[in-house]
Amino acid sequence: MIKAQRIGPLFTDLYELTMAASYFDRHIEGNATFSLFARESAARNFFVSAGLETVLAELACFAFADQEIAYLKDTGLFADDFLSFLKTLRFKGSIFAMPEGSIFFPDEPVLEVTAPIIQAQIIETFLLNAIGSQSLFASKGARCFHTADGRPLVDFSLRRAQGQDAGLNVARSTYISGFAGTSNLLAGQRYNIPVSGTMAHSYISTFEHEIDAFRAYAAIYPDHSVFLIDTYDTIEGARQAVQVGLEMKKQGHALKGVRLDSGDMIDLTCRVRDILDKAGLFEVKIYASSGFDEFKIHELLTNGARIDAFGVGTKVGSSADAPYLDVVYKLVKFNGRLVRKLSPGKKTLAGEKQVFRKIDAGGFYAGDIIGLRDEAIDGATPLLSYVMRQGERVSLPPALEDIRTDFKSNFSALPDKYKSIHQRHPYPVELSEGLVAAQKEI
Amino acid sequence: MIKAQRIGPLFTDLYELTMAASYFDRHIEGNATFSLFARESAARNFFVSAGLETVLAELACFAFADQEIAYLKDTGLFADDFLSFLKTLRFKGSIFAMPEGSIFFPDEPVLEVTAPIIQAQIIETFLLNAIGSQSLFASKGARCFHTADGRPLVDFSLRRAQGQDAGLNVARSTYISGFAGTSNLLAGQRYNIPVSGTMAHSYISTFEHEIDAFRAYAAIYPDHSVFLIDTYDTIEGARQAVQVGLEMKKQGHALKGVRLDSGDMIDLTCRVRDILDKAGLFEVKIYASSGFDEFKIHELLTNGARIDAFGVGTKVGSSADAPYLDVVYKLVKFNGRLVRKLSPGKKTLAGEKQVFRKIDAGGFYAGDIIGLRDEAIDGATPLLSYVMRQGERVSLPPALEDIRTDFKSNFSALPDKYKSIHQRHPYPVELSEGLVAAQKEI
Repeated sequence: MIKAQRIGPLFTDLYELTMAASYFDRHIEGNATFSLFARESAARNFFVSAGLETVLAELACFAFADQEIAYLKDTGLFADDFLSFLKTLRFKGSIFAMPEGSIFFPDEPVLEVTAPIIQAQIIETFLLNAIGSQSLFASKGARCFHTADGRPLVDFSLRRAQGQDAGLNVARSTYISGFAGTSNLLAGQRYNIPVSGTMAHSYISTFEHEIDAFRAYAAIYPDHSVFLIDTYDTIEGARQAVQVGLEMKKQGHALKGVRLDSGDMIDLTCRVRDILDKAGLFEVKIYASSGFDEFKIHELLTNGARIDAFGVGTKVGSSADAPYLDVVYKLVKFNGRLVRKLSPGKKTLAGEKQVFRKIDAGGFYAGDIIGLRDEAIDGATPLLSYVMRQGERVSLPPALEDIRTDFKSNFSALPDKYKSIHQRHPYPVELSEGLVAAQKEI
Repeated sequence: MIKAQRIGPLFTDLYELTMAASYFDRHIEGNATFSLFARESAARNFFVSAGLETVLAELACFAFADQEIAYLKDTGLFADDFLSFLKTLRFKGSIFAMPEGSIFFPDEPVLEVTAPIIQAQIIETFLLNAIGSQSLFASKGARCFHTADGRPLVDFSLRRAQGQDAGLNVARSTYISGFAGTSNLLAGQRYNIPVSGTMAHSYISTFEHEIDAFRAYAAIYPDHSVFLIDTYDTIEGARQAVQVGLEMKKQGHALKGVRLDSGDMIDLTCRVRDILDKAGLFEVKIYASSGFDEFKIHELLTNGARIDAFGVGTKVGSSADAPYLDVVYKLVKFNGRLVRKLSPGKKTLAGEKQVFRKIDAGGFYAGDIIGLRDEAIDGATPLLSYVMRQGERVSLPPALEDIRTDFKSNFSALPDKYKSIHQRHPYPVELSEGLVAAQKEI
C-alpha cells in the first residue's frame, strides 16, 4: 500500500485562521467539542460512512511547514506571535467516531472532535471535505450494490470524477460498499483494490477489422479478455466475438465476456445472450456500461436485460442525483458549557454525543437513539468510539477488506425498505431523555 | 506560486495499459490523433475551458516510477519486455488546444493529442478528468458570474467539494470565470488567488454574548471585519453589529460588512440594510451565503434582496444541477487514416480539427464552424493552437490573471441569450465543407 500525500493545514478556509488569531489574541484556549453530521437529504434514506482514514492519517502529521507560515505572513492578516504559535501547533485532540463502513442517518454524529478550540476549529474544512465526499461516494455505491443484487459492479468513473482524489476515493469508497473492483490503477496500487477492465472503441478502430482487434487482444490475454462489441454493429460484433471465443476455446482458453456500451440494452443483451448460448459459449458473461447508476440498473434488470456485470462510471463517480452531502461541523460544547445554534432551519444539538442502535430479534436495525456520550442505553449498541486520543491513533488502521466486510454485515442488517432507491422511508431516530434534558438546561 | 504534485501515469484505467500491451505486442506504433470534446448538456448553453495547465504540467514530467512498474508487474498482466518499454516511455506528442478561459460548445474539440498511439492512449483518463472537471467548475462559475451582475462572488466550497483537488480546482476555475476570490487558503497559496472570509457561528457561540465576539474580531481586524449576524436572531444581530460598527468608525476604522447565512433573505436583507443605513453605516456591505448558486442569486436579486456580495459554496463547488461534463476522447486519425465511431448516439467526427469562430460587426460571437485543422476559413478566427510539440511546451504558462482577463473578454462577446440560466439556446455550430467531405471518404 502506498501512503497518501500530506494535505497540509492550509487546506482550510481563511476564516478558520482569522478566528483562531482572535482566540489567540483573547487567550481563548478552552477545550471545544465539535460534532460532524449530515443534514437530511431528500434523495437518501441512509448514508455509509467513509473518510475516517484520510482524517486520521492527516491529523497524525498535522503541522504547518515554513512555506505555509510564509504564505500566511504574506497575506498581512496575521501577527508574528500568532504565526510563531502556529509553527509549533500540532493536533493533540481526541476523535470519537463511527468506523468506516457504518450505516448512519441524518443528524447522527459520525464523528466528534474534542481539542483546544484553535486545533478543533482549524481542521473543520478538511474534515468536512474528507468525510463528506467519501461518505457521499460510499452511500451512492451502496445503492448500486443493493440494486445489482449480487451481480459484480466495477467502478469506471475515474475519467469523469470531479478531480484526482475524487477518482481515487470513489474507487475506495465504492469498494467499501460492495463493488467488486475498479478500473483505476492508482487506486489499485494505493489501496490494493482488485483492478479490471475491457477495451476501448479506439482500440477496435485501430485495426482494419473488428475481428483482428479481438484476436490481437486474445493473443496476449487468453484468459482475461472482455471484447467490446458495439463499435460498428452490436449483433455483428457479437458474432465476431463468438468466432474468436470459439478459437480461444479450442486452444484451451476462455473468452471472459463481451461488453455493450450503447444502444437498446434490453433488446441487445437478450439477442447477444442468444448468440453466445447458441454457440455453446454459456460461460461468456455480458458486461454492460454507459450511464449506469442504481436507477438504470434497476430499470434494465426489471425489464429483462441479460446483464451479468456492470461497469458504472460517471453518474456514480459524481453521485449525480445528489452530488453533495449536507455535512456540517458544529460547536456543541466549549469550556465545559453546552452550546447550540438556533438559526432558522439550522438548529443543532448541544453536548458530546453517542449514537445507540437498537437491533430487533431478527438481527435487523430497529431504530437509533442519539444520546449523551456518557449515557448507557439498555439493549442498544453504541456506534462511536475513541479512534484518536491526544493526537495519537488508538489502534492500527483497519484493513480495507475488513471495512468492506463490516459494511456488508451492517448493510445486511438494514431492513430492505430503507434500501429503496425510489421511495423515502425515514429511519426512526429519537433523542434520549438525557440529551433532551441537556438541551433545556442551556 | 507552489507547484502542484506529480500525479503519475497510474492515474489511468487498466484497459489503457492492456490495450497498450497489445499494441506493443503487435508492433502497432503509428501516430494517433485523439479529439477531446464535450457532448451536449441539457443544462448548459456554453462551456468554459479549464484544466489545460494541469495537463501540460503533468505531461511534461510523464514517466513511470520504479514502484509503479513494480505494481504493474504484480498484477500479472504485463510481460517484462512491455514493462521495460514503459520504464523508458515519455510523452513526446503534440497538444493542439483552446486556451483556458475559452468559451466552447458541444462537439467542438477543446484539445487534440497527436502522438504514437500508446502515448496518446495511456493519457486519456487523466486528460478527461482534468479538462472535464475543471471546465465543469469554470462553466458553473460563469453562470454565477453572469447572474451576480457585477456583485463580487467568493468561492466558499472547499468543505463540500468532492475531494481535495476538486476544492482547489473549483477555486482556480471559478476565479478564471470571474469570481473575486476564494476562502480556500491552499488555493490562495498555490495560485495566488485573493482570499477572503468572515466568521463562523461557532466563533459567535464561543463568547458569552454575540457583541463580545464582534468586538474581539474587530480588535484584530479593524478594517477586515465581516460580522456574521444570524447565530441567534438576525435583526438583533444587525443591531449589535451596528453598535460595534459605530465604535469602529469612531476609532477611524470601518466595518466591512455583515453576513447572513439563513432565513428569508429578501425580507431580512432589506431590514438589515435599513438598520445599517439609519445608523449612517452606508459603506457596510451585506454578504449572503447558504445554498447560493446562479438560480438562487437570480431569484433573490429579481425579488429585491439587498445583497452586495455572495459567498457561494456547495452547489457551485459540486456543479450540483449538472455534476459532470460528458467529455469524451475519441480516436479520429490513425497512421494517416481517418477514423470514426458509429455506435448509436455516440458518433464521432473523423480528422484533425480546428474550431473557427465568426464574429459579427458588433464584436459578438456569431457562430462556429468545426473544420479540418489545415483549412482556412475566411473571416473566422481559429481557436486552437499548438501548446506542446514533441512533449515540450511551446510557451511559458500564462498568468492566471491573464487567463481570467481573457475569459472576461471572451464572455463579453457571447450574446446574452446564450447566457440564460433557465432557457436552452443552442449556439450555431456548423461543419465545414472540408470536414463533411472527409467524413464521406471513410
